[in-house]
Amino acid sequence: MIESLHSPHIARVKALISSRGNKERGEHGEFIAEGLQCAREALAAASGPKIKTLFLTESGQSRIDTAGLDTSSVETILVSEPVMAAMSSTITPQGILSVCEIGRNEFSDLKLSGSSRFIYLHEIQDPGNAGTILRSADAMGIDAVITSPGSVDMYSPKVVRATAGSLWHIPLYSGITLSTLSEKFPTITKLALSAQGKTSLLELEKVGDCVAIFGNEARGIDTLISGDVIAVNIPMKGNAESLNLSAAASIVMFHLAAL
Amino acid sequence: MIESLHSPHIARVKALISSRGNKERGEHGEFIAEGLQCAREALAAASGPKIKTLFLTESGQSRIDTAGLDTSSVETILVSEPVMAAMSSTITPQGILSVCEIGRNEFSDLKLSGSSRFIYLHEIQDPGNAGTILRSADAMGIDAVITSPGSVDMYSPKVVRATAGSLWHIPLYSGITLSTLSEKFPTITKLALSAQGKTSLLELEKVGDCVAIFGNEARGIDTLISGDVIAVNIPMKGNAESLNLSAAASIVMFHLAAL
Repeated sequence: MIESLHSPHIARVKALISSRGNKERGEHGEFIAEGLQCAREALAAASGPKIKTLFLTESGQSRIDTAGLDTSSVETILVSEPVMAAMSSTITPQGILSVCEIGRNEFSDLKLSGSSRFIYLHEIQDPGNAGTILRSADAMGIDAVITSPGSVDMYSPKVVRATAGSLWHIPLYSGITLSTLSEKFPTITKLALSAQGKTSLLELEKVGDCVAIFGNEARGIDTLISGDVIAVNIPMKGNAESLNLSAAASIVMFHLAAL
Repeated sequence: MIESLHSPHIARVKALISSRGNKERGEHGEFIAEGLQCAREALAAASGPKIKTLFLTESGQSRIDTAGLDTSSVETILVSEPVMAAMSSTITPQGILSVCEIGRNEFSDLKLSGSSRFIYLHEIQDPGNAGTILRSADAMGIDAVITSPGSVDMYSPKVVRATAGSLWHIPLYSGITLSTLSEKFPTITKLALSAQGKTSLLELEKVGDCVAIFGNEARGIDTLISGDVIAVNIPMKGNAESLNLSAAASIVMFHLAAL
């Protein structure tokens, strides 16, 4: 068991979850996922990020055992509670921390099915929003989540936590410009959520392949709305100026799933 | 201008936003709302929490002036940037911090309209969820938000921030048990969101007065589902075990608004 607070493992994990972890994650192709739920998904899922190292405290080990998870295929390292506390980005760590490999999906491999549903996140910044949107996308059977350059890193600890395991269920493509997407899929229906949109979400009719575009929390999406983008609004009866982005995106995705 | 970091104003504000602020807010009937948006709502809204003291830095004052807000009816205190930084719960304070009076709504005054839409939050804990749900409720024209005993304090800083000003648009009733609600409104239709619910959200038909019940993030609501409560599920095509609570609640409220 690792008990030294000078262990290089601590430095490795902390570098990946620090405020400058983005650069570190990019260079090493690794990110950190904490907790039982992520470990379960990573061990069970046929696709998605693989675990490179699994750090466990004794209580974390018994949680893993109780859950009946088979960790024989991954490197497992027992650490003391203080070492886990030094590594973790949470206040009450569960004693389970996975170093995972960022699986780079090739955007060129993404194909249309005729009824594909994609989500495109344009420069969104809030990690809670980004993770919640990915989780809702998973729930609603969305086929892929695509993020623009300048969007929050989907492998940052707060995003990973907010996805609640959905990171292992849905293909993610990062750093794709909207024009790259448009060039690859010239026939796809592009919807963009905008408070100023002329089309009500409830007026949308059956669509084939479709991408729903969600913009930056503060600046919205209006600069992206060109000729072939349908600007869609969520009809609101009440007084709020706007909805939280992840709440709005979840409503749109629920509606798209039923079309 | 207040420049001393020993000013009793700092202690007053910090007590109201501390982790034990719940007790302090209850005793003094005050809470803190930061930023321009809350100040605008508090100054403009006919109802909702009134400002008792408005703390401004010079840059906060010019934001208020630029926005054309009339602060003549409230006590305004200029503070230095370091004093504001010491008061604020945010990393980058906007220089605008309002001490507001918690307006206690009398639950006995709440009436049904025949098509009332209420939200009931049962022991929900996450402040971001609670604030986002209140914001969505406001957007969807919900008539009142009611919280159970043991729910997160709706006047805590993270909740207030997540409401994005909606706290001034929608009546809030705190600490009401579900049986109190049921006794007061024996004819109201009670819906409870539950992953195990037998009724799909999409199967719901026109309802008159209605309350949508959302449960604790981890424990859900199943213990509350008795004879007259309709357990409703959100149909999900995908793989996620569940939705984020505020995303789920927003979908339900959007749907209820259209019924």
